[in-house]
Amino acid sequence: MTDYHKRASTILNRINELAKISEVPSCVTRTFGTFAFLEGSQRIQQWMQNAGLQTQVDAIGNVRGRLESPRADAKTFVIGSHMDTVVNAGKFDGPMGVMMGLDLIENLSQIGKSLPFHLELIAFSDEEGVRFHTTYLGSKVVAGSFDTSLLAKQDESGTSLGEVIRAIGGKIEQLSNDAIAPNDWLGYFEIHIEQGPILYEQKVPIAVVSAIAGQKRVEIKCTGMAGHAGTVPMDMRQDALCAAAEFILEVERLGKENKDKLVATVGKLNVVNAASNVIPGDVSYSLDLRSKDEDVLEWAYQTLKDTCQAIGERREVAVAWTLIQETAPVACDTMLNELLGKSISECGYERVELVSGAGHDGVPISQVSPIGMLFVRCFKGISHNPLEDVELADMAATLQVADQFINHLIDIYQ
Amino acid sequence: MTDYHKRASTILNRINELAKISEVPSCVTRTFGTFAFLEGSQRIQQWMQNAGLQTQVDAIGNVRGRLESPRADAKTFVIGSHMDTVVNAGKFDGPMGVMMGLDLIENLSQIGKSLPFHLELIAFSDEEGVRFHTTYLGSKVVAGSFDTSLLAKQDESGTSLGEVIRAIGGKIEQLSNDAIAPNDWLGYFEIHIEQGPILYEQKVPIAVVSAIAGQKRVEIKCTGMAGHAGTVPMDMRQDALCAAAEFILEVERLGKENKDKLVATVGKLNVVNAASNVIPGDVSYSLDLRSKDEDVLEWAYQTLKDTCQAIGERREVAVAWTLIQETAPVACDTMLNELLGKSISECGYERVELVSGAGHDGVPISQVSPIGMLFVRCFKGISHNPLEDVELADMAATLQVADQFINHLIDIYQ
Repeated sequence: MTDYHKRASTILNRINELAKISEVPSCVTRTFGTFAFLEGSQRIQQWMQNAGLQTQVDAIGNVRGRLESPRADAKTFVIGSHMDTVVNAGKFDGPMGVMMGLDLIENLSQIGKSLPFHLELIAFSDEEGVRFHTTYLGSKVVAGSFDTSLLAKQDESGTSLGEVIRAIGGKIEQLSNDAIAPNDWLGYFEIHIEQGPILYEQKVPIAVVSAIAGQKRVEIKCTGMAGHAGTVPMDMRQDALCAAAEFILEVERLGKENKDKLVATVGKLNVVNAASNVIPGDVSYSLDLRSKDEDVLEWAYQTLKDTCQAIGERREVAVAWTLIQETAPVACDTMLNELLGKSISECGYERVELVSGAGHDGVPISQVSPIGMLFVRCFKGISHNPLEDVELADMAATLQVADQFINHLIDIYQ
Repeated sequence: MTDYHKRASTILNRINELAKISEVPSCVTRTFGTFAFLEGSQRIQQWMQNAGLQTQVDAIGNVRGRLESPRADAKTFVIGSHMDTVVNAGKFDGPMGVMMGLDLIENLSQIGKSLPFHLELIAFSDEEGVRFHTTYLGSKVVAGSFDTSLLAKQDESGTSLGEVIRAIGGKIEQLSNDAIAPNDWLGYFEIHIEQGPILYEQKVPIAVVSAIAGQKRVEIKCTGMAGHAGTVPMDMRQDALCAAAEFILEVERLGKENKDKLVATVGKLNVVNAASNVIPGDVSYSLDLRSKDEDVLEWAYQTLKDTCQAIGERREVAVAWTLIQETAPVACDTMLNELLGKSISECGYERVELVSGAGHDGVPISQVSPIGMLFVRCFKGISHNPLEDVELADMAATLQVADQFINHLIDIYQ
């Protein structure tokens, strides 16, 4: 067993220990502000203290630990990931990045290396956005882009975000002070499971994330004419479900034809007042479009909007098209990516770049800092699921690469 | 105003009076065995008595009125339709046929015509099957095909059919005695709204029903692989909704290519655990196939089953195909149809034949008797809806044709 395997084993033990802290027994659920969440954050803070970091819990509940540089003009390099989970989650999505970062900094602390920059480890309090249906609460505070209008948002029980922050000991007036000032940022680095099947299929343990895809989310309503399935002839129908079906296949075709730069998904579909003997008159469905290239995203969006309208006109089915949400693509930093890629090669692994289709805390942070990310292979690409799994050997490989990367970074700024 | 318009006006008044008797104020809902149902059946029985008929309510709640022939060997010709309704129904589906039959027999009674057969008017108690999810309860009793295993069926409140029959005064042991013996049947005639748009589009008031379509109802489950809409590349997906969409368009294509002999509908579709950012892994949907031709029905069923399996195999999506229900097509009687068509021509209307895509009480009765039906044009083909409407002029035209038909029938057997 190599030293990296031993360290990976420690990390895995911590991941397993954290996974036992859950709102619901026998599954992993730790959403923002719950008792399980607080217990988890205390455990993480304890580990940070044991590793020799100066710790604090900030107003939004992020657990932050610092290893300071002796230099007066030192900037801050942040390593982070999130500690909250979805409902009935896997163990690795979020916590693995926090535990990897802790191990990296603990290791630097133990060997007493002099740092040319401050290292700050952050366990973000809410990336998944399960409780308040809004993502990146923790990283928005750190990036200084937290919008106080979010404080009025309520969870299912009617408790507001502001009330939860106060309940867990946060001070609303402190939120803006918890940001790292734009001038203080040196960079941001996150390790995360891929949550997709590409590394698993390609049999590669690690990849550099080149960009986090931009996204457009659309809600579409098709309104035709409901009718009796037995009495309305085929050529006198205005079947809203047939119109939707035609569109779904066009979405798939456009996605497949542009598979290197686009994913396109219809995930939800609801037939209103559905019955097996009624021709569907009203159908609502979703469209999720993602690309790392803003032009491709916009082109796909317009193309599919036109296609949807054309299908509706030809079929005499009214189409209502509503853009619900959009985020721009975020490119990871060229220099950090070059350093990550170089580290991968030096450690003897294949150098692969992936686009992240899922969002990460790097999205808000990219507004104030260069960001870099490593993806780690996960079992069959499964995530947000108890079956989520990462091989110990892949964690060891990632640790080796990340060590190499941090050392290169220290050397550059030394 | 012709005499037929005056009679149609009386019929419309009775339809409107009956429509006011409802379980729910300001809409028409009279399902089997409710207080509104009982009040409606008492009103109908009263009208039958006023028309000089010998009335009875049988064990299943059918209201039956007879005008007897003086002949010792006379058989029975039944005119009927149903008095129950769907939830939030139209006024005409069912009651119009009962009120038309009442007027026809009342007219014969008033002019004192000697009948070569008994005329029996039946207001069937349950054709729609809303309460116990089983159709033709009333006509099955009259046809002698009521299956006593149905008595255990329960409504949503847990009350069994047997309990409801007893509660409304029926005797279970009497059910089999309420059948008209196969040897006693001369024929069955029903007037019903079309419930489809063909006559409305063709600007024709009446049609002869050539057959009641057979039906196959299928439930299909497609199981692919759920995944993150952002992280699984387009060519690594097993999207169950895309498989369903491809099938839905094949169903529509087959139906359109065979539009003169087939209707094919996917009416229900459910994406299990749907979310806009999740690739659908499980999708369930329905298929409703109808044709007047049993061979066409079977061919379409097998073709679509093969198509569905082929789509599943190509897409690596598992397909579970379950036949839920099937009824054979029922042909209306050639002689009765000839007489109805002749009557239409003699009254100066265009002679049109239609297949009924919806089921009617003639289905169980066809097992013991020749059946004939007239369809009446309804507004835009709308039915099972408060917007259901029939023009007074069309009711007058139908009455004239039906009078002619009954008189021809009397002449034939005189």
